[in-house]
This record gives sequence, structure tokens and C-alpha cells, in this order.
Amino acid sequence: MQRYFVPAINFSDNTVTIEGDDVHHITRVMRMESGDEIICNHPSGKAAICKILTVSDQEVVVSINNWLEQSAELPIHVTVAQGLPKGDKLELILQKGTELGATGFIPFQASRSVVKWDNKKVAKKIERFKKIVKEASEQSHRTILPHVESIETIQSLVANSAFYDHKFVAYEETTRELPTKKLSYYFDQITTGEKVLICIGPEGGFSESEITKLHTAGFESIRLGPRILRTETAALYALASLSYHFEERE
Amino acid sequence: MQRYFVPAINFSDNTVTIEGDDVHHITRVMRMESGDEIICNHPSGKAAICKILTVSDQEVVVSINNWLEQSAELPIHVTVAQGLPKGDKLELILQKGTELGATGFIPFQASRSVVKWDNKKVAKKIERFKKIVKEASEQSHRTILPHVESIETIQSLVANSAFYDHKFVAYEETTRELPTKKLSYYFDQITTGEKVLICIGPEGGFSESEITKLHTAGFESIRLGPRILRTETAALYALASLSYHFEERE
Repeated sequence: MQRYFVPAINFSDNTVTIEGDDVHHITRVMRMESGDEIICNHPSGKAAICKILTVSDQEVVVSINNWLEQSAELPIHVTVAQGLPKGDKLELILQKGTELGATGFIPFQASRSVVKWDNKKVAKKIERFKKIVKEASEQSHRTILPHVESIETIQSLVANSAFYDHKFVAYEETTRELPTKKLSYYFDQITTGEKVLICIGPEGGFSESEITKLHTAGFESIRLGPRILRTETAALYALASLSYHFEERE
Repeated sequence: MQRYFVPAINFSDNTVTIEGDDVHHITRVMRMESGDEIICNHPSGKAAICKILTVSDQEVVVSINNWLEQSAELPIHVTVAQGLPKGDKLELILQKGTELGATGFIPFQASRSVVKWDNKKVAKKIERFKKIVKEASEQSHRTILPHVESIETIQSLVANSAFYDHKFVAYEETTRELPTKKLSYYFDQITTGEKVLICIGPEGGFSESEITKLHTAGFESIRLGPRILRTETAALYALASLSYHFEERE
């Protein structure tokens, strides 16, 4: 059943009012009418099966039939801090990272990022990124919508990292240097409900100065398997292996 | 150091002769000259540090300095059978799957594949796929070049599946149906050196008839985490979680 993320203010006790792009999606793309059923996600993470009552060009009003118990959310909160990569790789990371259960994304301007973002265009890009994340969340049956922060600097990233329980940096040198601790050593230290921040560099990796700043702030270097991964693959490896560790072990 | 896959016939006792596209890459893209060092991968999986002796438009001749001991190969052999997806998603799966350690890829025409491949164009496409896999192997420091099969039918896929020790199918219904066995239950049955085949459907999933054929042939249904993944994300989840299970646990 199709899912839609709806702001809390649009929920009443028995009905939900859907506005904006989702109206077009419900009426034109899915061609649904009154009597059809959808799932509405509340920002709290709860989700309800709803039946369409009325349809107009401006809004779709649905009745709440019953609240669902199930959750497809990772039992830990994982935020990916991604050094700005080239081309449309960030969009791939946002889409796939959302499918794989990320709680949020912090794109940051790394010193080796080839792309330099124009401050004037950031707001528009972030809007687009939020749309990608919303669509991926609906497709993968997420009940929580991952957040996308505005582009940060390494300084603000480090300053904000104090709010996380575990801070990791995927450092390519760690893959090459042997012997080193394996990934499960770090994952075993994380417990349900904790906040994890994983920092990944752009194509050229981190500068010495960035690595020093991150280590000083308490980030631990981790390896993501023994092969050298492209920057856009690193976040996906980290999320898939965290999912396996926390959700797919007997 | 840059890596190149070189056919066995081009290796002599002390030198390696590099031909074809790699000559362009070494001389024009990397702008290397005699005295510079590269790594040459032998098809057996061995790799050697080599020094460039001579450079011409047709070939680069290098001397073998020393053979490397390290390996970045998964301790099990994983082949991904992928139902033909839309657009350029197969290229994404080949590139990322190679980085994540796959041994081979079998694209197959599934009954719900929107794309229908023209037999005349298959040879050309396979050539392109092999190039993507070769480049990704070099970038991720693989020592074995994953194979890419010609497009198969579900019948030939099932017939060839007898050569594998473990056969899995990523079946979306398994994610939704609870309770079900977790992924580690299946991974725990795999031992080092064994051959694993993972079959993934196209966007629309498998037909009832295909699932029946696969189950009859001994394929076991697995889930890849509790979220619904797009077809191109499924192979990456499977490979990353196998890497975590076999390479990153203490």
C-alpha cells in the first residue's frame, strides 16, 4: 500500500488532510479515488491505514482506520556525514542510504571536495535532497523521515558531533594498514537507541588536518571491509553492515 | 598504486607486456613513464609490483619486482543473478557489486523485466559490462576479475544453479511476512571457499511461476533487512552483509 509522510498539523483525531505534491501523486499518478486505501505516516514514527473520503485539486481527506504496530526502523540512529562528492553521487547516497535505514544526512564541504557549493544555491539543493529522501522513505516503507542538514564545514561538523554517542570516520588508510580492529569490535559497543555518526570523505579522502580534527574530537577510524570502496559505496556498506549486525542476526 | 588486469599470456618470468586500452590509461590518463611503478594482476589472483621499462603507443613493458602476499578477496565466492532492471541500474550493480567483492554476475531476463534485450545487442552490452567490472576491480584493488555471463533465462539459471553450494533468492514477501528466519541463520551455514548464488528480481519482483521454479531447484528465500529495498540496492545489501559476516567480525 502506498505511503505518504504527512505533517503533524494535518492530523486530527479521525482524519488526515493531505496537501501539496502528494495530492497530485494520489490523484494523477496512482489514480486513486474515494474508498481507496493508503498509509499515512505521522512524524512521530507512527503510521495508520487510512481510507480516502474526498478528493479535490487542493487536498485529499482520508479517515484513519487503524494505527499500525510494525516498524521498519533501525534500532539505532545512524547519521551519515558525507564529504561533498562529484556529480549526482550525493543523490545516490541519499536515496540508497534512506532505503538502508539512515536517520539523517549531513553533507559537508571537505577540503578535497572538487565541488564547491554556491551558498545561494544550497537552499534549493537541500529542498531537492529532502524530496529524494521523502520518496525513498515512502518506497522503502520507512516510518521516520530522515533529516538532511544544510552543507556544513568540518568545524561545525566537529562542534555538533558532541551530540552523538559514537563517532566514526571511514579512513581509507585503515583498510590498508594491517593488523587493525575489525568492524564488529566497534559495532559491539553500540546499544539500542544510541546515536551514531559516520563521517565519510569525498573522492580524494580526508586531508591530514581534517583527520587530526576528527580524531581530536573523538572520532574513531574504522575500515569498511578489506577492499577500497568509492566514496558513494562507503555509506551503503556502513548502513548495510549495521542493519545486518542489529537486525539480521539470530 | 594503480592496478591493471593482464591476461596470463602476457606474463613472462620477469616481465609483463600490457596492451590495448590500458596502454592509453597508463601513458595518457596517468601520464606514467619508464621507472614508474604499477601493480599487475595475474588471472590466478596473484598480483605483482612492477616497474615500467619501455613505453610505446602499442604496449607498455614492465619488469616484475615482487609478488604481493595480501588479498582483498572475499573468502567465499558470491555470484549475483540479477533480473534485468530498467535504465542503467545494471551498470550500478556491476560497479558497486565488484567493489563489494562479488565473484560474478548473471543478468537474466525475468518475466517482469520491463527491458527486453535484443539478442543482437547482447554481445556488445556484455563487452561494456566487462569493462565496467574491470575498471571497478582495479579501483577497489581486487585481485580476481569477476565474470559477467551472457543474459540467461530463468530455465538456464535454474539448470546452472546445481554448481553452487548455497542458493538464495531475495524475496520481498519474506521481508513482510513475520516471523521468518534472520539472515545470519543462512550465512552461518556457509563455510570458507564455498560458492554462493544470490538471485534478485527486477523492479516488479518475481512471478509466482519463477518463485516456484527457484524453490523447486533448492533456492531458499532470504530477507535483506526489514525495509523494502529497490532492486539495485538488494545486491549491495547482500554483498556488504556477507563481507561483514565473513571479513569484519572479531
